[in-house]
Amino acid sequence: MRRKEFEVTDQEAIESFLRERGDGVLAFAGDDGWPKAVPLNYVYTDDGSIYFHGSKKGEKMRGLSLDAKAEFVVYEAHAFIPSYFSDPYLACPATQYFRSVRIRGTVKQVEEPAEKARALAALLGSLQPEGGHAPIDHEDPKYAPPLRGVAVLRLDIAEMTGKFKFGQNLSDERREKVMQGLAERNRPGDLRTIEEMRAAASEPE
Amino acid sequence: MRRKEFEVTDQEAIESFLRERGDGVLAFAGDDGWPKAVPLNYVYTDDGSIYFHGSKKGEKMRGLSLDAKAEFVVYEAHAFIPSYFSDPYLACPATQYFRSVRIRGTVKQVEEPAEKARALAALLGSLQPEGGHAPIDHEDPKYAPPLRGVAVLRLDIAEMTGKFKFGQNLSDERREKVMQGLAERNRPGDLRTIEEMRAAASEPE
Repeated sequence: MRRKEFEVTDQEAIESFLRERGDGVLAFAGDDGWPKAVPLNYVYTDDGSIYFHGSKKGEKMRGLSLDAKAEFVVYEAHAFIPSYFSDPYLACPATQYFRSVRIRGTVKQVEEPAEKARALAALLGSLQPEGGHAPIDHEDPKYAPPLRGVAVLRLDIAEMTGKFKFGQNLSDERREKVMQGLAERNRPGDLRTIEEMRAAASEPE
Repeated sequence: MRRKEFEVTDQEAIESFLRERGDGVLAFAGDDGWPKAVPLNYVYTDDGSIYFHGSKKGEKMRGLSLDAKAEFVVYEAHAFIPSYFSDPYLACPATQYFRSVRIRGTVKQVEEPAEKARALAALLGSLQPEGGHAPIDHEDPKYAPPLRGVAVLRLDIAEMTGKFKFGQNLSDERREKVMQGLAERNRPGDLRTIEEMRAAASEPE
């Protein structure tokens, strides 16, 4: 079973995580009978689509044209929690806190030039928000040939699940010990993790 | 086709990357007919095995017991290269430099208590090198019950491919422009990227 205590049902928290991050891994069945795990930059657009870009020839195209079913996962590691924060003997409480979102859906190649241009503009806008290039426009004769040459893929979302692990499974006593350990260690990100732990602990089941 | 110019054949560079990193994504076929993308901490051991741990019941166990074929990918984003480093008009040269290693193999559940204990010790050793716990020993009566309760998975490697992108595809003129842009921008990691670009450019084809 997937451990339910870490599941996030707050759609806003899931979407805000997807907008914050920029890369993930796409899993699909390869045409050689092996599962594939391909790291990709992505953009999550205001209308709730996920876009990627890539080569028109290659394993993504070959695999996904035979079976368009895919799962895309976006992951961020937060604080690592050493066992001794809450247990002086056993190693078992050691764990990694994280946020992840898994998106199941089907991947379609976008053929329409205007949608391709919009998707690439959104993708680049998230990576290069300062601009510094001519607007990506399929009617600009300088953009038309490269736009035809690149593949744009759209993941049509069927299901989206968030899993954020910030000690929700701990007793109040253990949680206090972990928060104290983080406060004393005070590595970059540790204070944010304490805030996330507080927020997660106060959420209704 | 996979773009050959970014492929890394230096086994030492691949292994050193795997030792440096601690998480990746495992792709496999789910028992519901959907591909799965599961983020996992891992350890790459001195004898060339990859180990994970997890719950004994769950989608990994269900999917992998039906079809043990998997691909595990470890990815690190390096500098994002904005288009204007090398082109004042088109957005097309914008790209992400990265290192990634993809490992294809079959996943087996480790049942033998001594191997389980060694794998968990290696996994924790990479995350908590400072120690601070009793040695993980299957003969320690305090460890035996939790060791029985946790699943340890071993990925038996059939193929391992590295792809490091640091501008190997660029002309000398473009490469110089990108290195100059990085030197001026000077964000954390940019100087390291310049070094990687220099090293990649001087490698024999």
